Amino acid sequence: MDIKKGDHVVPIFNGECGDCPYCKCEKTNMCERAGVNPFMTVMVNDGKSRFSCKEGKPIFHFLNTSTFCEYTVVESACVVKIDPDASLKTMTLLSCGVSTGVGAAWNIANVKAGSTVAIFGLGAVGLAVAEGARARGATKIIGVDINPNKFIKGRAMGITDTINPRDFEKPVHECIREMTGGGVDYSFECAGISEVLREAFLSTHEGWGLTVILGIHTSPKMLPLHPMELFTGRVIIATVFGGFKGKTQLPNFAKECMQGVVNLEEFITHELPFEKINEAFQLLIDGKSVRCLLHL
Amino acid sequence: MDIKKGDHVVPIFNGECGDCPYCKCEKTNMCERAGVNPFMTVMVNDGKSRFSCKEGKPIFHFLNTSTFCEYTVVESACVVKIDPDASLKTMTLLSCGVSTGVGAAWNIANVKAGSTVAIFGLGAVGLAVAEGARARGATKIIGVDINPNKFIKGRAMGITDTINPRDFEKPVHECIREMTGGGVDYSFECAGISEVLREAFLSTHEGWGLTVILGIHTSPKMLPLHPMELFTGRVIIATVFGGFKGKTQLPNFAKECMQGVVNLEEFITHELPFEKINEAFQLLIDGKSVRCLLHL
Ligand SMILES: NC(=O)c1ccc[n+]([C@@H]2O[C@H](COP(=O)([O-])OP(=O)(O)OC[C@H]3O[C@@H](n4cnc5c(N)ncnc54)[C@H](O)[C@@H]3O)[C@@H](O)[C@H]2O)c1
Ligand SMILES: NC(=O)c1ccc[n+]([C@@H]2O[C@H](COP(=O)([O-])OP(=O)(O)OC[C@H]3O[C@@H](n4cnc5c(N)ncnc54)[C@H](O)[C@@H]3O)[C@@H](O)[C@H]2O)c1
Ligand SMILES: [Zn+2]
Ligand SMILES: [Zn+2]
Repeated sequence: MDIKKGDHVVPIFNGECGDCPYCKCEKTNMCERAGVNPFMTVMVNDGKSRFSCKEGKPIFHFLNTSTFCEYTVVESACVVKIDPDASLKTMTLLSCGVSTGVGAAWNIANVKAGSTVAIFGLGAVGLAVAEGARARGATKIIGVDINPNKFIKGRAMGITDTINPRDFEKPVHECIREMTGGGVDYSFECAGISEVLREAFLSTHEGWGLTVILGIHTSPKMLPLHPMELFTGRVIIATVFGGFKGKTQLPNFAKECMQGVVNLEEFITHELPFEKINEAFQLLIDGKSVRCLLHL
Repeated sequence: MDIKKGDHVVPIFNGECGDCPYCKCEKTNMCERAGVNPFMTVMVNDGKSRFSCKEGKPIFHFLNTSTFCEYTVVESACVVKIDPDASLKTMTLLSCGVSTGVGAAWNIANVKAGSTVAIFGLGAVGLAVAEGARARGATKIIGVDINPNKFIKGRAMGITDTINPRDFEKPVHECIREMTGGGVDYSFECAGISEVLREAFLSTHEGWGLTVILGIHTSPKMLPLHPMELFTGRVIIATVFGGFKGKTQLPNFAKECMQGVVNLEEFITHELPFEKINEAFQLLIDGKSVRCLLHL
């Protein structure tokens, strides 16, 4: 056990047991035992929940962390020990969205200095991609969103150009190809929408364009791509948690954030007391917040 | 111009001009000027054909090489100079199928020693993948074909295990997962059939499985995959000409073939005089030949 009482930790929805064939494989950050699994609602060792409400009725675990509460119980594979000097207020962002977005730019796309990037959907995840791409020295970072309010925050976080698809008759990928002489080097789908995914794919340059899917696609629609479209040399891949192996890599990522490589403060747009959690969600649904910090 | 009269050359359907942004990018083997293009039926410099038949009626170029004839005219970007000691009889295999299959295993999948492989479709392309994987030291190479005659040649060329999908009630990917403790490291789709592509994808191991599409998909069917299926960590990509940059890399590949790294002789199952070209095609269509050499 790598954790003791008093340690400062960050819970992660995609755990790392360190022992399974996946954890031992350098090509993946999936974990057989504690990887993200929406159907895993109990603890691994005894198949039971650790929460209950009135009359002992069980409350089930959610995405490994179960953090919409004041106290929680999680697998040890799902907590990462971080530097005690790090601000806990911002470190909580490493639990999901920021690691996912920055990691997609760093670990999956491996964005190069001087390259061009398009980001579809400027929620916390898309903005984190922008921060990651900016930190790597990308020179053009195009933010695409149907909510133009997102562009204000975006410009503070690495976005150099913006597109609201509703401002154009033609498809977004045509705008992007015109702006970049044939397409971006990397595109990131952070909306979870089938049509957006296709636009993201077509926005990259033939021959070497890479599209990374981060958005969770809840519709039953199949991939809106023809097999021959992959013969253009464009590649499309998906990633969970930005490819980070949590236990192994987050402590160092946390350090880089402390050094200002990624600007975490920008992600927290609101702060509310814990009992106003539903108000916090409404801000998110309305596209008014990036992340809202809940105080106990 | 790198070619002079008397040189021994191999024509290639996917040329390399050496000058365009694609040729200068190490991530792709596409070429803006002389890459494969089924709609390119004339020479680049003057937009005219170099062939004609009775009364000067033009005959159009086909896939850069136009090699179903005794003499041809091709872009200089589409001929590769090879060692004059190489047997021209077998070197012609490098023009398409063998380079495509071996290159997919070497350049695209980068098959590792000790790994497991499944190949769907054992024509010349699939068999070349097998040769490439064998040369890299893959320990299990599963050949899948609905024509069991293909397995005889397959076993001579690296295939260690065979599956005829028609022998099983259950889908092939289930057989393969059982044979490999969860799926192969790499699968190759060499049939150009949508359903086969899905089986190839599902045959790989979650977390790190890679599927390479080589088959040309002529049906309008879209990719038979859901976006969330990419979140299993499986990756799927397509490749033209096995990722080889023809001019740059084939001379060395030809040398490796001369040294016996890849066994070219095995691919030529028949020899016929040129005027029997239609008979040669029928052998291919009937699944009786791998490649038939036509003599002048
Ligand atoms: N892959 C992972 O590991 C992982 C981790 C966290 C979140 N996610 C997923 O990433 C996605 C983004 O998360 P988030 O927290 O940033 O969500 P969010 O809802 O805050 O942001 C989504 C953004 O997309 C924009 N959008 C909606 N329709 C659009 C369109 N047609 N074109 C362009 N933009 C459009 C919205 O206006 C919004 O700004 C979600 O699908 C989420 O489930 C994935
Ligand atoms: N990507 C490239 O650059 C490139 C280059 C050359 C060829 N190709 C393509 O590669 C593919 C293979 O070429 P080839 O010359 O080996 O063709 P081929 O016709 O000789 O071989 C195809 C094989 O697939 C088998 N097959 C058919 N249906 C099947 C099924 N349901 N399950 C399993 N196997 C099945 C056939 O029996 C045959 O053995 C073709 O689609 C060709 O166009 C692509
Ligand atoms: Zn694990
Ligand atoms: Zn070129």
